[in-house]
Amino acid sequence: MSALDDLLTCLRFASISTDSKHRDDTRACADWLVAKLTSMGLTTALHETPGHPVIVAKNKHIAGRRTVLLYGHYDVQPVEPLAEWLSPPFEPTIRDGRIYCRGATDNKGQLIAHVSGLAETLAQHGDLPVNLTILFEGEEEIGSPNLKPFLEAHRDELACDLVAISDTGMVGAGIGTFTYGLRGIACMEVKVYGPTIDLHSGIFGGAVANPVTMAARLVASLHDDAGRVQIPGFYDGVRDLQEWERTAWASLGDGDAETLALTGAPALFHEAGYTERECRWARPTAEVNGIGGGYQGEGSKTVIAREAFFKLSFRLVPDQNPERILDLASAYLRERANPAVRLEIKRGHTGSAYLVDPHSSHGQAAQRALKATFGGQVALIREGGSIPIVQAFKDVLNADTLLLGLALPDCQAHAPNENFPIANFEAGIRLNQALLKELAA
Amino acid sequence: MSALDDLLTCLRFASISTDSKHRDDTRACADWLVAKLTSMGLTTALHETPGHPVIVAKNKHIAGRRTVLLYGHYDVQPVEPLAEWLSPPFEPTIRDGRIYCRGATDNKGQLIAHVSGLAETLAQHGDLPVNLTILFEGEEEIGSPNLKPFLEAHRDELACDLVAISDTGMVGAGIGTFTYGLRGIACMEVKVYGPTIDLHSGIFGGAVANPVTMAARLVASLHDDAGRVQIPGFYDGVRDLQEWERTAWASLGDGDAETLALTGAPALFHEAGYTERECRWARPTAEVNGIGGGYQGEGSKTVIAREAFFKLSFRLVPDQNPERILDLASAYLRERANPAVRLEIKRGHTGSAYLVDPHSSHGQAAQRALKATFGGQVALIREGGSIPIVQAFKDVLNADTLLLGLALPDCQAHAPNENFPIANFEAGIRLNQALLKELAA
Repeated sequence: MSALDDLLTCLRFASISTDSKHRDDTRACADWLVAKLTSMGLTTALHETPGHPVIVAKNKHIAGRRTVLLYGHYDVQPVEPLAEWLSPPFEPTIRDGRIYCRGATDNKGQLIAHVSGLAETLAQHGDLPVNLTILFEGEEEIGSPNLKPFLEAHRDELACDLVAISDTGMVGAGIGTFTYGLRGIACMEVKVYGPTIDLHSGIFGGAVANPVTMAARLVASLHDDAGRVQIPGFYDGVRDLQEWERTAWASLGDGDAETLALTGAPALFHEAGYTERECRWARPTAEVNGIGGGYQGEGSKTVIAREAFFKLSFRLVPDQNPERILDLASAYLRERANPAVRLEIKRGHTGSAYLVDPHSSHGQAAQRALKATFGGQVALIREGGSIPIVQAFKDVLNADTLLLGLALPDCQAHAPNENFPIANFEAGIRLNQALLKELAA
Repeated sequence: MSALDDLLTCLRFASISTDSKHRDDTRACADWLVAKLTSMGLTTALHETPGHPVIVAKNKHIAGRRTVLLYGHYDVQPVEPLAEWLSPPFEPTIRDGRIYCRGATDNKGQLIAHVSGLAETLAQHGDLPVNLTILFEGEEEIGSPNLKPFLEAHRDELACDLVAISDTGMVGAGIGTFTYGLRGIACMEVKVYGPTIDLHSGIFGGAVANPVTMAARLVASLHDDAGRVQIPGFYDGVRDLQEWERTAWASLGDGDAETLALTGAPALFHEAGYTERECRWARPTAEVNGIGGGYQGEGSKTVIAREAFFKLSFRLVPDQNPERILDLASAYLRERANPAVRLEIKRGHTGSAYLVDPHSSHGQAAQRALKATFGGQVALIREGGSIPIVQAFKDVLNADTLLLGLALPDCQAHAPNENFPIANFEAGIRLNQALLKELAA
C-alpha cells in the first residue's frame, strides 16, 4: 500500500521543531512533502519563514467551486524520555495494528491520510471536487510563531470558504467525532502592594493590611461557595446550551468517572446545574493559575510581605467578549480591594470562543463525511481549550474551521510510544475523500 | 572616663556571630569580657557551647538577698551594606554625642552600661546590694540556639528571683521605658492538594477544584471584612486591656502617623474598637507569612496546579494558649476545606505571650529605677513581637523578666550607622545602680 509507505517515509524524518539539532531533519521533511505534493500534480511552493518553512499547494482553482484550506503540521514533539520507548522513536514499527513512532498521530498520520486521500482522487479523476489549498507548517509544536504573519502576508492567496483540520481527538475508536466548539481565553495578572518594605509580623502585625491576605481575599471573591463566578456581568451573553447538545454529550458515557481517573482529583467540583462535561466544554471559568507572596522557603518566617501577586485566566464561551471580561474583572477587583493596599493590574492575551454550527451546511457536510467514513452516530463535541490557529483563520481569512480529529485517547500524543491505528489512517483517507465530495455538493 | 573606654574597647571586636570568619573576633570579645568581670572582683567563668561561649559571673551570693540575673549579648549583626557606613563599622566614632559602631546600641552599649554600673558600685562599696548573676551570650543574633540547653544544664547555678535585660527600646529620648508585655506566637503551614498532576486549565477547567483557589478561600476565611479573626474560640481567654494601659498608651503620641511613616502602607487596617498601638501590643492576630502555588514566572501559563501552600503565624496575648490556637485553627480550616481538595497541616513553633505586672513589687521597683534615672514619667509599654529568651527564662528558671531598654528608634540597630547616644550610655550606668538598689529594698 503506497499510502502507508508514504506515511512511514514521512515518519522517519526527526522533524523536532523546537530542537535546533534537528533543523535539517525538519527541512528534509518539508522538502519531501513538497516533492510528494508536486508529484501528485499540485502546484506547490515552499515558503521560508524566520523559523521552519510553510508549504502551500493548490490544484487548479476554478471559479464557482468551493475553496477549502486543508491545514496540517509536519513538525513533532521531542522524544524524551527516550528510555520509555519500546521501539526507536523515529523507526516506525507496526504492532497489533498500530504504527508506533513520534508524530504517528500528531500530526503526520492525520496529515498523510489527507494527502493520500487527495492523491487517490487525483489519480482516479485528474482533479479534486473543490478548489483546494494545502497549508502545512513546521512550527505547530512551538506555538506557530510565524503562521499568523504568514496568513496576513498571503491573505489573498489563502482566501477560502472554510478550513479543515484533522488534529483533534475522537471520543472513542470508530466513532466519527466533530469538534464544533472551543472556549476562548482572557488572561490577567494582579499585583497587590501594601507597605513599602517587608515588615516584622510581631512589631506591625495587627495594624496594617497584609498584601497576601488581601490577594487571597480577592481570589476568594471570584467564586461563590457553589463555584459560580461572582463578577457582575460575567455571565451576560453566555449562550445557553442547547437541548440537543446536552442530550448528545450525555450519551458519550460517564464523564465524571473519566475525569476523576484522568486528574486523580479527590472529587469533582463544578457549577451546579451542569454536567462536568458541560462545564468543561460550554461554561466559562475563572481560574487562578498562580499565586505568590511572602516567605517561600522551609519552616516559618514571621514576615508581612510588601506585595503579593496572582495570575488569572478566564475560559470563555460564546458570546462573551474577552476584552469586556477583563474590564469587568478589573473593575470588580478594584472595587473590592481594601483601601489599605494598592492594585496593579496587567492585562494578558485574549482569544474569542469558537463555535461553528454543526447543523449549518458546512457542519452537515462534515457530519455526512464522518458518517460515510465511520458509520454509526457522529459524536458532536466541543473542547475546553483554545486552538490559536483556528482563531487566526477566523481573524485573518474570515473562515470557519471544521475540526475532524482522528486521534484516540490512547494514541499517546506528546508522550513516549506515540502511535496511530492503521484503521484510523485508512479512515482518514476515506474521510478526506468523503469530506471534499460533501463540501463540493 | 574609664566606662566609655571600656565600651570603645568592646566595640572594636568584630564579634559577628553568624560569620565563621569572625569566630576569633567573637572569642576575643568573650575573653576580654571575662577579664573585665574578673578584674571587678566577680567570679567569672567562660563556658564552651557548640557555638560561641556563654559567660557567667557572680558576686558572692548571700542567703536572704534577692537574686537578679542580668542578661546581655556580646555578638553583633553583620555590617553589610558596607558602603553606607559613614565611618568604619568597627571603629567607634563619636559624632554629635553619639557613638557610631556596629553593636553600639545592640547590645554592647547597653551591656557595658550595666557592667560599668556594677564596676562603680563594687569599687565604691566592695559588693552589690543583691546577689547578682551575669549571663552574657554570643549567639543572640543567630537565634540563641545554645542558650536554652545551657539554662537547662545550669538550672541550679542560674536560679534567680528575676531577670533584667536592657535590649529593647525607649519610646523617645529621655523617656524611661518599661516593656512589661510581649506577644506570644504559634506557627503552622498548610498544604492544599487537588489533582495528582498539574492540569490544563482549558481541558479540565470548570470540572475540578483549583487548589490555589481553595487555599485562597481558606486564607480569606481567617478574617471578617473588619479584620477580626473568625476562628471560633480564637478570642476565648483574651485578657481585656485595662483602662490605665489604654490611657498610658494614648499619651505616647500619634501612633497612626508613626506607623504609617515607618511602614509606608497606603492606610492602616486594624481591628475596630482599638487603637493601632493597642492592636500591635495587646490584640492577637492571624497573619499569612507566605503563600504559593502554580505558575510563578513571567506572563501566563494556563495551568491548574496540583497543590498550593500557605504559612500562618498567630501573635497571641494573655491568656491564649498557643497549642490550643493551633488546634482551633486546624479544625476550622479542615471544616471549611472543600471536599474536592485534601489538606496537610504541619504545626510549627509556639511561644506563650509574656506579661509582667508593672504594678507588682518587681514592676514598681523597675519603675522607680527608671524614674530615678530619667526623671519624668515612665512609659509603660508592651511590644508586639516575641523574645524567645524571655520565654526560656520563664520556662527553665521560672523567673520573670524586666525589660528596661535603652535604644532609641533612630539608633539604627541591625542597619548601617548603628549608634548609641553617650547620654543613654550614662543613663544606663545610673539605671543599673538604681535598679539593683530598688530590687534590694
